[in-house]
Amino acid sequence: MTVENPASALEVSQALIRCPSVTPEEGGALDLMESLLKPLGFECHRLPFSCEETYGVDNLYARLGTNGPVFGYGGHTDVVPIGDANAWSVDPFGGTVVDGKLIGRGTVDMKGSIGAYVAALTRFLKSPEGKSLNGSLNLIITGDEEGLGLNGTRKVLDWMTDKGEKMDVCLVGEPTSNTALGDMVKIGRRGSMNFALTVRGIQGHTAYPQLANNPLHPAINMLHNLLQEPLDSGTEHFPPSSLQLTSVDVGNPTTNVIPAEITANFNVRFNDLYTSEQVEAWVRERLHRADFDYDLKIRVSGESFLCPPGPFSDLIGNSILDVTGVKTELGTSGGTSDARFIKDYATVAEFGLLNDTAHKVDEHCTVQELEDLSKIYETMLRGYFNA
Amino acid sequence: MTVENPASALEVSQALIRCPSVTPEEGGALDLMESLLKPLGFECHRLPFSCEETYGVDNLYARLGTNGPVFGYGGHTDVVPIGDANAWSVDPFGGTVVDGKLIGRGTVDMKGSIGAYVAALTRFLKSPEGKSLNGSLNLIITGDEEGLGLNGTRKVLDWMTDKGEKMDVCLVGEPTSNTALGDMVKIGRRGSMNFALTVRGIQGHTAYPQLANNPLHPAINMLHNLLQEPLDSGTEHFPPSSLQLTSVDVGNPTTNVIPAEITANFNVRFNDLYTSEQVEAWVRERLHRADFDYDLKIRVSGESFLCPPGPFSDLIGNSILDVTGVKTELGTSGGTSDARFIKDYATVAEFGLLNDTAHKVDEHCTVQELEDLSKIYETMLRGYFNA
Repeated sequence: MTVENPASALEVSQALIRCPSVTPEEGGALDLMESLLKPLGFECHRLPFSCEETYGVDNLYARLGTNGPVFGYGGHTDVVPIGDANAWSVDPFGGTVVDGKLIGRGTVDMKGSIGAYVAALTRFLKSPEGKSLNGSLNLIITGDEEGLGLNGTRKVLDWMTDKGEKMDVCLVGEPTSNTALGDMVKIGRRGSMNFALTVRGIQGHTAYPQLANNPLHPAINMLHNLLQEPLDSGTEHFPPSSLQLTSVDVGNPTTNVIPAEITANFNVRFNDLYTSEQVEAWVRERLHRADFDYDLKIRVSGESFLCPPGPFSDLIGNSILDVTGVKTELGTSGGTSDARFIKDYATVAEFGLLNDTAHKVDEHCTVQELEDLSKIYETMLRGYFNA
Repeated sequence: MTVENPASALEVSQALIRCPSVTPEEGGALDLMESLLKPLGFECHRLPFSCEETYGVDNLYARLGTNGPVFGYGGHTDVVPIGDANAWSVDPFGGTVVDGKLIGRGTVDMKGSIGAYVAALTRFLKSPEGKSLNGSLNLIITGDEEGLGLNGTRKVLDWMTDKGEKMDVCLVGEPTSNTALGDMVKIGRRGSMNFALTVRGIQGHTAYPQLANNPLHPAINMLHNLLQEPLDSGTEHFPPSSLQLTSVDVGNPTTNVIPAEITANFNVRFNDLYTSEQVEAWVRERLHRADFDYDLKIRVSGESFLCPPGPFSDLIGNSILDVTGVKTELGTSGGTSDARFIKDYATVAEFGLLNDTAHKVDEHCTVQELEDLSKIYETMLRGYFNA
């Protein structure tokens, strides 16, 4: 895969989309990134990681410059599967433009952002200001964001720590825009954790409940306690934390048997008022009130975090305003992203294309949005380095 | 199948057990009943009923005498399946006696009672007092008590109404004894009804609950309302009514999806404070409080009923005391039986063998219990007709 004009966000994005890099496949996408970054002077490190639990994944760390400040970019070249191939109007890995729209798997999530950024870097570094850069640039490009995330950004960050590689700020190119490019920049994310509750009693006949111990009754009491009051009413930058029951299951087909066990699953999205430990304490306190034994399995997908508004978010907001005239909002909504790992290493903010077609059939953005995004990224680079 | 000595409860019971009359099979059991009752002077009517929904079943109505009062007996010759044949210590249809115990499918539920009653009738009707009987005797023997009950006792009672056949009292031979023969006579039963609740909302992503409408939350509220307070605290002859959740199901395997639907099943056993309509009203009032749409399917298995203590229950209690020295308790516990249909036609009471092995492998009673039961039944007959 080669790119004739690396200063074109469209051309780089098309080339990336043409790499079939469904997690965990590298698909040529990281090779392509190396071929674009090396000529700009980046030192590239391929970082394949693996672990016993699951598939291995390839990653790329690229660095230009030796002194600070360091402007970082975090992204992923892996994409989710295409789903029903026949439902697509074009080849999902064709990088096709139809009526001014670039359509393909990963266009907005997030090869379009990477393409826009590489093109912005190319233009910036070839300009007189870029050639006399006073600072450094680095990129963390992972192949494990859409999968389990065990062999991706976290391990690259560990590797960077070992090597003394640092960042001051980091732009993550996730698709954060809602209805117009630039209308939303994310400066934090809610945390997310999943709970699996099991309550066990003693099976019996419904005609003789005194000889049984129906676990469904204390379980309903526990779940009711969890739903009685919200965790909070939101904070300055976050919506209220939210607990959602996702499943409750017994599977008893008979009407005259009191069953022995019930399971319930729930998800908590929590804001910056809580750590996951504090959410767990909040949950357990309410379960305990039922005064009945239970088993609780907990999986923390990510802690909540906030990088409070400051120079970096101002830089992004001003660059958006300059290029598109859109007044951006600083938000923390939505799911989780690798920004949750990066925030421990740098001031992080997320900004990319519109998210409405992410993971869907005919995922797309307009060519205009792609070029505007690249201009905004270039404006940010110039602004950051006072160029 | 013939019985050498119809005055022997054991012999009649053994012959009945040897008829493999698993619902809906007649298995020769009703033929045998006819062959025993006709020589005593009973007029026998075979009443095979069928309906579109299910299997057809054969039944027997037998009547001796023309004038009142009429002493009735209600029973069933059908039995539940044997389950694992290899788990039985003897042939479940062999009518085998081992160490003084009669073992076989239907021994206590309720061929033993029928055998004891037929033997008691034989002895009574051949005695001088029985020969000059001032009154009538009838028997309703159904083949559809352990099944759906659509073609059994209810239809026989309809047929009797058509023919002008009446009863004053009716003894139902279900196994009511708990730990000693005669320790419990049932003078009523709780009603039973099953509810299937469905609550539907709008599916969505757990990260965006405001775009979904989680049906699990109002459903938990509804179920909690049902469990907040008991229906009542019992009555003179009944334990408290009881609501038991039997299943709650969603079947959502993902942790990031708010599901569209939840179902919950519950059973209510209700005493003489309620009709099924009143239980439904009690339930709906509590579901309504959640202020959310729901769908409720209801199946009434039986209404509660009570035949208050009186001369008939006294007669049974005194007969038990005379024969065994056991002081009986008048109860209303347990599941439902065909007595719930008969109570609209006669003063009904249930009394039979020990129920602890009913429906189980190696179902059995002792030969002593069988002979004692037959003596008690005979004492009742003599007492009822002042013989």
